[in-house]
Amino acid sequence: MEFTQDKFARHMQGINGSAIREIFKLLARPGMISFAGGNPSNTALEPDVVSRLAQEALAKHGTALLQYGGTDGFGPLKESAAEFLRGDGVNCEAVDILPVQGGSQAFDLLLKALIDPGDVVLCESPTFLGAIQAMREYNARLVDMPMDGEGVIVEAAEELIRKHHPKMMYVIPTFQNPTGITLSLERRRALAALAAKYGVVIAEDDPYRDLRYSGEPLPPIQSFDEEGWVVYMSSFSKYIAPGLRLGAAAVKNPMLLRKMVIGKQSADVHSPLLNQAVVDAYLRQGLMPGHLKRICGDYRRQLDAMLAGFRYFPDGTTHTVPQGGLFVWAELPEGMDGLAAFHAAVEAGVAFVPGTHFYPDGGHENTLRLNFSMCDIPTIEAGMEKLGRVLTEMKK
Amino acid sequence: MEFTQDKFARHMQGINGSAIREIFKLLARPGMISFAGGNPSNTALEPDVVSRLAQEALAKHGTALLQYGGTDGFGPLKESAAEFLRGDGVNCEAVDILPVQGGSQAFDLLLKALIDPGDVVLCESPTFLGAIQAMREYNARLVDMPMDGEGVIVEAAEELIRKHHPKMMYVIPTFQNPTGITLSLERRRALAALAAKYGVVIAEDDPYRDLRYSGEPLPPIQSFDEEGWVVYMSSFSKYIAPGLRLGAAAVKNPMLLRKMVIGKQSADVHSPLLNQAVVDAYLRQGLMPGHLKRICGDYRRQLDAMLAGFRYFPDGTTHTVPQGGLFVWAELPEGMDGLAAFHAAVEAGVAFVPGTHFYPDGGHENTLRLNFSMCDIPTIEAGMEKLGRVLTEMKK
Repeated sequence: MEFTQDKFARHMQGINGSAIREIFKLLARPGMISFAGGNPSNTALEPDVVSRLAQEALAKHGTALLQYGGTDGFGPLKESAAEFLRGDGVNCEAVDILPVQGGSQAFDLLLKALIDPGDVVLCESPTFLGAIQAMREYNARLVDMPMDGEGVIVEAAEELIRKHHPKMMYVIPTFQNPTGITLSLERRRALAALAAKYGVVIAEDDPYRDLRYSGEPLPPIQSFDEEGWVVYMSSFSKYIAPGLRLGAAAVKNPMLLRKMVIGKQSADVHSPLLNQAVVDAYLRQGLMPGHLKRICGDYRRQLDAMLAGFRYFPDGTTHTVPQGGLFVWAELPEGMDGLAAFHAAVEAGVAFVPGTHFYPDGGHENTLRLNFSMCDIPTIEAGMEKLGRVLTEMKK
Repeated sequence: MEFTQDKFARHMQGINGSAIREIFKLLARPGMISFAGGNPSNTALEPDVVSRLAQEALAKHGTALLQYGGTDGFGPLKESAAEFLRGDGVNCEAVDILPVQGGSQAFDLLLKALIDPGDVVLCESPTFLGAIQAMREYNARLVDMPMDGEGVIVEAAEELIRKHHPKMMYVIPTFQNPTGITLSLERRRALAALAAKYGVVIAEDDPYRDLRYSGEPLPPIQSFDEEGWVVYMSSFSKYIAPGLRLGAAAVKNPMLLRKMVIGKQSADVHSPLLNQAVVDAYLRQGLMPGHLKRICGDYRRQLDAMLAGFRYFPDGTTHTVPQGGLFVWAELPEGMDGLAAFHAAVEAGVAFVPGTHFYPDGGHENTLRLNFSMCDIPTIEAGMEKLGRVLTEMKK
């Protein structure tokens, strides 16, 4: 018998993989300047440090790191990650921490615990592509929340909650992917209050918060939550190394944490102990503050170079001025087509991600997401000039 | 608002976690002899080797191991794992290989790709507990296939296929968990033929096959499959180390592989590159054959000690005589209660897993699963004597 498409589960039928991952294939062309990714800079990665920590961890814990571990996580990391997150203002103890395979898995487990087909999730618009795909795989119904320069507009969100009775709200509050926008303090407090008032779980996806280059840190939404409605999802991908695949969720609601642990039992039993022990050692040896200081200094200069490069862009272009993170968001003059621009730009040797991909319902063709962490400053300058020229040419 | 149970997705409502994981908590008692787990022996684990390989891999690949990687896996491992699996008789090339977080994740991704709520999965009875939980989390309907000492009875399986039109058949063909039974050669061929005839995907879960202590290796079911209906799931957990969380699926059907990759994008983006590189180096440096020879020699003696220990058990007890793997399955005389025996045995300082947990619909209270890999020979002898005494006492 022949294997046909209708063998697949309904929730997977229409999903053909991340548009961004297809774009990445183009980036392999020699000489391509890429503003398309979301990776840390190679200069931010420390293979020698990871190698040393792995050796030390295996010498210290021995076979215990190679046996099966608990699904709820490696004890020492639960402690050190809780301490790290408390430093970021998260209200948590070791017992609330679930080590996961990067922030993606925390969100996946939360969807698995909560979402029945057709359940509504409110999300920012635009929002993280990977999250859109994850929500679709659970047949969630995505409803956009309107945003402005301070993030989600709370009154509009409340109206949508009354109308759609969502199970969950998905928010990236700090240096949002893709816009770079940061949710204001008052709105953080207000969203936490909405969650408790209406019984909506907030998935607070906050992997960039310690990549701050200016302005003052704001407390997480989770810090205003007194009843366990906000799940805080952090990741060590942007701070230490994405290749280690390690993140940590803080889940104050023990019933919800338990269901996420059960979901993880079936998904992968537990996160690899060596990786958990390496991150634990990184935190315990106090390496994080100095490392963040160094990489933030570099990223800040790269961001500044990118912002300066908008002088090459067509008149009428607007863009965000993020205080941190990895992305700048640009809107081209109305009527310009970011998808056509993408193809012309790739021809010219510079790549970005068309903004339309970040909208659950598409549209917004005149938007682009630009990453500045993966290129050095001369490359950013050359790339922005090149991209500006392509766009200016298209506008004529 | 208070968080109530009805917030959870329907498929997670009734699932309260692995019974085995609850049992494991009892094993922490000092002096407890445990036949309950399914771990490799600590003496089979090689922290020094893993430490050296991690160092070498990070020195060789540098930051490439710390960046994001492809969801479809680390190229060198796809090659070396394909070669390793070909040595086991699996029909595969590097392009067919998906590195995963242990065999559990391969099965989870396969369920995600194929199962709509209510879809039928045929499974062995008894079968692996973790698989039962995973299938339930997708709201699959589990239908038992009758087994005898040569594994699944093919005629019965065909009848069930005609009756239930299953999407999938889940089979552990070699040294099955929990029974230790190996599916015969003819039945392997016949099941592959059934899959193609009726269009049923076979999930062939084969993590124990290289732990063979006697008899001749049999080709995988997958080797008889010409149309890509059989997904072969291997794992390095039992061969190298479960704590690394690394397995490999061989998926000859490119459409199905693609859907599994898409599912993995959302689940965890990719498997950690360091772990993939360590296993790759382990295979390339030719460490596997000698290692397997050493651990199989040890496990064989442990198995023999356990089998000899049945002399302490009540008359009328029957048990399997596996040619490999980690488990022996016993049936106590009809009417004896394995759950009551479990509590009495734990009181006496020896633990096992009551067999009823391995049946999707329960029952079979007179069965037990016994693991022999985690105890040395004197401990196995002492534990079997102790357990035999408890059971004989109960039978009176």
